[in-house]
Amino acid sequence: MIDGLRIDGQRLWASLMEMAEIGATQKGGCNRQALTDLDKQGRDLFVSWAKAAGCSTTVDRIGNIFARLDGSDATADPILMGSHLDTQATGGKFDGVYGVLAGLEVVRTLVDAKVQLARPLEIAVWTNEEGCRFSPAMLGSGVVSGTYSLEDAYGATDKDGKRLGEELERIGYRGDLEAAPRPYAGMFEAHIEQGPILEAEEKTIGIVTGIQGANWFDLTVKGESAHAGPTPMTMRRDPWRAVAPIVSQVLALADENAPWGRATIGDITAQPGARNTVPHTLSLSIDIRHPDAGTLADMETRMRQLIEQACSNAGVSFTLEQVWKMEPTAFAPQLVDAVEEAAKALGYSHMRLVSGAGHDSLHTAQFAPTAMIFVPCADGLSHNELESAEADDLEAGANVMLKAVARLAQADAA
Amino acid sequence: MIDGLRIDGQRLWASLMEMAEIGATQKGGCNRQALTDLDKQGRDLFVSWAKAAGCSTTVDRIGNIFARLDGSDATADPILMGSHLDTQATGGKFDGVYGVLAGLEVVRTLVDAKVQLARPLEIAVWTNEEGCRFSPAMLGSGVVSGTYSLEDAYGATDKDGKRLGEELERIGYRGDLEAAPRPYAGMFEAHIEQGPILEAEEKTIGIVTGIQGANWFDLTVKGESAHAGPTPMTMRRDPWRAVAPIVSQVLALADENAPWGRATIGDITAQPGARNTVPHTLSLSIDIRHPDAGTLADMETRMRQLIEQACSNAGVSFTLEQVWKMEPTAFAPQLVDAVEEAAKALGYSHMRLVSGAGHDSLHTAQFAPTAMIFVPCADGLSHNELESAEADDLEAGANVMLKAVARLAQADAA
Repeated sequence: MIDGLRIDGQRLWASLMEMAEIGATQKGGCNRQALTDLDKQGRDLFVSWAKAAGCSTTVDRIGNIFARLDGSDATADPILMGSHLDTQATGGKFDGVYGVLAGLEVVRTLVDAKVQLARPLEIAVWTNEEGCRFSPAMLGSGVVSGTYSLEDAYGATDKDGKRLGEELERIGYRGDLEAAPRPYAGMFEAHIEQGPILEAEEKTIGIVTGIQGANWFDLTVKGESAHAGPTPMTMRRDPWRAVAPIVSQVLALADENAPWGRATIGDITAQPGARNTVPHTLSLSIDIRHPDAGTLADMETRMRQLIEQACSNAGVSFTLEQVWKMEPTAFAPQLVDAVEEAAKALGYSHMRLVSGAGHDSLHTAQFAPTAMIFVPCADGLSHNELESAEADDLEAGANVMLKAVARLAQADAA
Repeated sequence: MIDGLRIDGQRLWASLMEMAEIGATQKGGCNRQALTDLDKQGRDLFVSWAKAAGCSTTVDRIGNIFARLDGSDATADPILMGSHLDTQATGGKFDGVYGVLAGLEVVRTLVDAKVQLARPLEIAVWTNEEGCRFSPAMLGSGVVSGTYSLEDAYGATDKDGKRLGEELERIGYRGDLEAAPRPYAGMFEAHIEQGPILEAEEKTIGIVTGIQGANWFDLTVKGESAHAGPTPMTMRRDPWRAVAPIVSQVLALADENAPWGRATIGDITAQPGARNTVPHTLSLSIDIRHPDAGTLADMETRMRQLIEQACSNAGVSFTLEQVWKMEPTAFAPQLVDAVEEAAKALGYSHMRLVSGAGHDSLHTAQFAPTAMIFVPCADGLSHNELESAEADDLEAGANVMLKAVARLAQADAA
């Protein structure tokens, strides 16, 4: 019975399009930033749908919504699905919303078929995932995981000076439930890839094994300014003599750690920045990423060595400041396997990959076995009003989640 | 008799210090910009000194002053010495002024010793050499050489909208003499090096064989922006993959053309310039220089090839725009030899070198055999209030000019 259940892809698409009307932009995207009146409308719509599907809903102190469908075993730990409903200012229709509404479709499908799983199911709507109105991003799930304190979260202000705690209160989503981990059998987050891999590889389902760690640095290389004309090359201390090889070697470091290593030199400035003057200082950003903590640490060590060596060779000095570090997150192997088995069983083309961007799953993985399901998005475009995904792919991702959830809910509670 | 003549170094120093009081800055430099009241005071002081030394003075239509000491052969072409009296806004005491006052000391020394050379001598004060108030630089000598028209020069405006022609009139230095080449037996310009070579090599006299050619470019390399996390290295079109090797190879191109090749990447910007985004565009300036026109042309050809190749390898596109080109100037061999023989005869340590910066000699070389004499300046510093030179070195440079002038004036007219 359960094995034959399928998501109604048209209903899922219709829900996505209805939600997208709230905050719709002229370019076909969505501007429904966290804790605005539009976010309240989106939350209200979701709650009405969840209730209509037979869920009870609760809200915790940081505004996360949990819509619960009872299982047959009232004592069993529930399975969590979900993502977020808030968007970027120039966001799209799918980022976050898809994970919430795919969860809703899983519930609707089970309820329509009058199938009750052993475990309860919960659909989570995490507060302020995007971080564009209130910093930091992934705040609601981060408060639950204990990464951020409730007090700090309440104190976050938007650019108009409005406080997150008061905005939560204002829109009626400051709940009573403690914002703390509860026991879960597992957490599944479906999401558009926000990258180009599935499209390029022509795969429908991405089995996400974890989230890349990222390590951000500011590198400042100091030489000596000199007139471009009279000063011989051998008498210069040109910071480019170190920076050019550093850039090549840092990029090569990512190549050597293919396919998941990443290195990006996003910005650079030269001082004084005059055409006919050797710069005394070059300042650049370095972003290195890898999903494996040990490999990321190795990349950092080698990066430090090559910078040291290049600056020493060039006779220039440097400072390297770590600006931010996000440790890699490895998802729970049994849940990752469950997603893969579901994709296989359903006959969808699939591949394992790693998320390059952060998600609420980064925080839920701290307190619950977690996995993610990616579906392709056109041109890898996201955080963009032109963000686009195919109805068939969205349906496939929800089917994979349904099957993985059903198997986990029955197997564990059997 | 002539061979035993020596410059009075203390008098030269005293003249330099007296001139430096006009526009003296708190940091010990000079702010005596072209055609200001202070420039008029400096010019007036020079004219009074030249007249006191027995010279007659004339002013041409672009304000160049010529102080003439008659020779015994009234029909012989004169020998020109000189440079400029205007300074940068935060200029020093020596740049330009030294060349004028060294010429004055040569005249004073001959007059004091009651030596009349066969050829007439002229000391030139060229108008608006620095270019900081009115653009372009080296304007007065450039009008005489025909590089710029008198009309365009008159129309040059400063940042307050004041016109050069009117400012010339206002300070009383718009003369009647046609601003055009007249026949000269030779032109000598003494100058501080404005570079570090003589100091590093511990040489007193630089025998300047010419002025470097310079070739300025704007290079824009375009790839594709991408998120630093999700986009695999193999799916990026990162302009750094071309720019890092281009920078290394352009610098190497100057190394390979040592000791006179120069290459400078003075400025660079990344777009969009975000830490976690692969830049879609890198824009950089390239400045290549060499004193030999053929070698400079070869450097440009090879630069174009390596940029083409690097961008092709990286799968990115580029535009390369030539912003400015100054052809190299080779000084007259017989005058260069005359300077070298004078330095040798006087027992000064010396070396041949090339000027990395532009000078009025660049223009006089178009209509008269020209050579320059460099003396060291501390740390190669110039266009700076801390510009500094040793009295002994300044005296030595003037002695070399005296000897070279005397030999040329007698030999040719003998």
